[in-house]
Amino acid sequence: MTEMTDTTPGWLSPEDLRSARDRMPILYIDAVPVRVDDRGVVTRVGLLLRIGSDGMVSRALVSGRVLYHERVRDALLRHLEKDLGPTALPNVPPSPQPFTIAEYFPTPGVTPYHDPRQHAVSLAYLVPVSGDCRPRQDALDLVWFTPEEAVSPAVQLEMTGGQGTLLKQALAYAGCLF
Amino acid sequence: MTEMTDTTPGWLSPEDLRSARDRMPILYIDAVPVRVDDRGVVTRVGLLLRIGSDGMVSRALVSGRVLYHERVRDALLRHLEKDLGPTALPNVPPSPQPFTIAEYFPTPGVTPYHDPRQHAVSLAYLVPVSGDCRPRQDALDLVWFTPEEAVSPAVQLEMTGGQGTLLKQALAYAGCLF
Amino acid sequence: MTEMTDTTPGWLSPEDLRSARDRMPILYIDAVPVRVDDRGVVTRVGLLLRIGSDGMVSRALVSGRVLYHERVRDALLRHLEKDLGPTALPNVPPSPQPFTIAEYFPTPGVTPYHDPRQHAVSLAYLVPVSGDCRPRQDALDLVWFTPEEAVSPAVQLEMTGGQGTLLKQALAYAGCLF
Amino acid sequence: MTEMTDTTPGWLSPEDLRSARDRMPILYIDAVPVRVDDRGVVTRVGLLLRIGSDGMVSRALVSGRVLYHERVRDALLRHLEKDLGPTALPNVPPSPQPFTIAEYFPTPGVTPYHDPRQHAVSLAYLVPVSGDCRPRQDALDLVWFTPEEAVSPAVQLEMTGGQGTLLKQALAYAGCLF
Repeated sequence: MTEMTDTTPGWLSPEDLRSARDRMPILYIDAVPVRVDDRGVVTRVGLLLRIGSDGMVSRALVSGRVLYHERVRDALLRHLEKDLGPTALPNVPPSPQPFTIAEYFPTPGVTPYHDPRQHAVSLAYLVPVSGDCRPRQDALDLVWFTPEEAVSPAVQLEMTGGQGTLLKQALAYAGCLF
Repeated sequence: MTEMTDTTPGWLSPEDLRSARDRMPILYIDAVPVRVDDRGVVTRVGLLLRIGSDGMVSRALVSGRVLYHERVRDALLRHLEKDLGPTALPNVPPSPQPFTIAEYFPTPGVTPYHDPRQHAVSLAYLVPVSGDCRPRQDALDLVWFTPEEAVSPAVQLEMTGGQGTLLKQALAYAGCLF
Repeated sequence: MTEMTDTTPGWLSPEDLRSARDRMPILYIDAVPVRVDDRGVVTRVGLLLRIGSDGMVSRALVSGRVLYHERVRDALLRHLEKDLGPTALPNVPPSPQPFTIAEYFPTPGVTPYHDPRQHAVSLAYLVPVSGDCRPRQDALDLVWFTPEEAVSPAVQLEMTGGQGTLLKQALAYAGCLF
Repeated sequence: MTEMTDTTPGWLSPEDLRSARDRMPILYIDAVPVRVDDRGVVTRVGLLLRIGSDGMVSRALVSGRVLYHERVRDALLRHLEKDLGPTALPNVPPSPQPFTIAEYFPTPGVTPYHDPRQHAVSLAYLVPVSGDCRPRQDALDLVWFTPEEAVSPAVQLEMTGGQGTLLKQALAYAGCLF
């Protein structure tokens, strides 16, 4: 959210800006990084490992806002590079059609997706990644799971805000749901 | 855009709010209303007829913002009812996956879509409508075209902001592009 | 067509014909009948109840072959009417794009789908049904399950050939996977 | 399978077999080879150049049958290698969902697609190709067109059987229809 705060005119307080912004859905992207074999079959799913301020481990998809005057595919590339490093070589899909949309509501239970900070609507894409991934920023690590592992209760429990459901939808779309 | 202005606290001027809002993409929906036969084949496309302040005739899709804490499918229903009347009986698709997204940029030429007022990202859906349509608000009329007529140069020239292209994409998705 | 002609012997018994035909994938459709509310949300999934010659109960999707010179959407309507009766009022989707394809192999384990009789490739569609359903032919009953019930282990275990997986993919596509 | 067995005569000549086979839709794939930039935007479309026995030039997509016990993605790879050579490096999509299906009927006018030899139902995919393409078999050449060129009347007129329409659908799906 820092991008916006940085460009706020002085006499709008952060609280005011937050109020205004909270009254609009925020446009997001979610990317599910995958390894594919030479026939296009998904063999691994990459999940970011994060440790919260409470010491809890969580696994996350690549996710973030679309900026003003930024194309959705540029936002995808920017967040993939931010989270996976500059040598990940993501293959952004040629079609802008997302495999689904995830509606993160500030109120839990309206949809399977929840974000206490805001109402975000995320365009979700499956993104094959062929290069060397080096997580940056606040992620400790990137771990590659088989599709079976990714939908297992152990991994699903470490995902928050409904991203475990979104991951299952991505694997259903890829034809490898178990 | 009036929805937001109406709920703006007094000491945020419209200019300030516009600045803040302009720095974010605004989430929209576009609905292409169609008549289908009992096999699901698209037989007609409905376009709204509008007359601009300059007297120019234009044809438009059903289009509008998604509000804070509103689901995308509720936004679809709200805009369809607003533009087609309460007895249109739209069949909102069971899947939230749009057939494409349209990125309306304030700068012409970045994408096929253009909106001088804002950066809007629109989720586009094909919506079969089976009831009686009575256009309301600022639309003079709703005219049903065959798919062939809808992609003809005469009709395409009356569509603005790239909606003619979006209509062609909808018909391509429906398998009736000419 | 030369690939097949090259391997055709001169005269063929019905057994040979079966062999020849078995050497080609057979085109199928799978339809997942659903009830939707007025916003398009899937509220129920319809599964056919069958009893096998061994007395085993199984649950099945609407499924069957596409015939020579038959359009896919006509095959969908024909099988829906055959299995759900003439008053089911199915809304065949306007787009011919299936939500996925299911490759039923005669050899188990190649894909999640298995058909011991043949290699069938099925185009899978989600079909809202608004009328009165009266199962016919070899189905004993049609039972409407909530999405939660449909993906429960109890129901999944009663589905064969991978149709339980296909049902989960349909619900993922509809945005209601649990 | 009963539908077909019921109409099968006792012993069959190769001609009869052809008749029998002709009474089933044949499963095909169509691949639209594209070059994409590092953001996934389609920059070129590859069309095969063929010269018919009548000396007529035609442009074609990569197209062919799916064989018995062959997965659809393996059929895609096989036909891409056959037509583009072994160093084309196609990126077969991770999802088996085709962007559309093309129903080629032996009778012209039933659908936009026509094949005088047979009833073929083709699963159509957009396939980014990053390697060196060397057309083989009966293709004289592979020519890369911009999307604008590919949908121009000059190129469209050189495509047969409705493949020009299928190409436009592929570009609509990729968000670059003009």
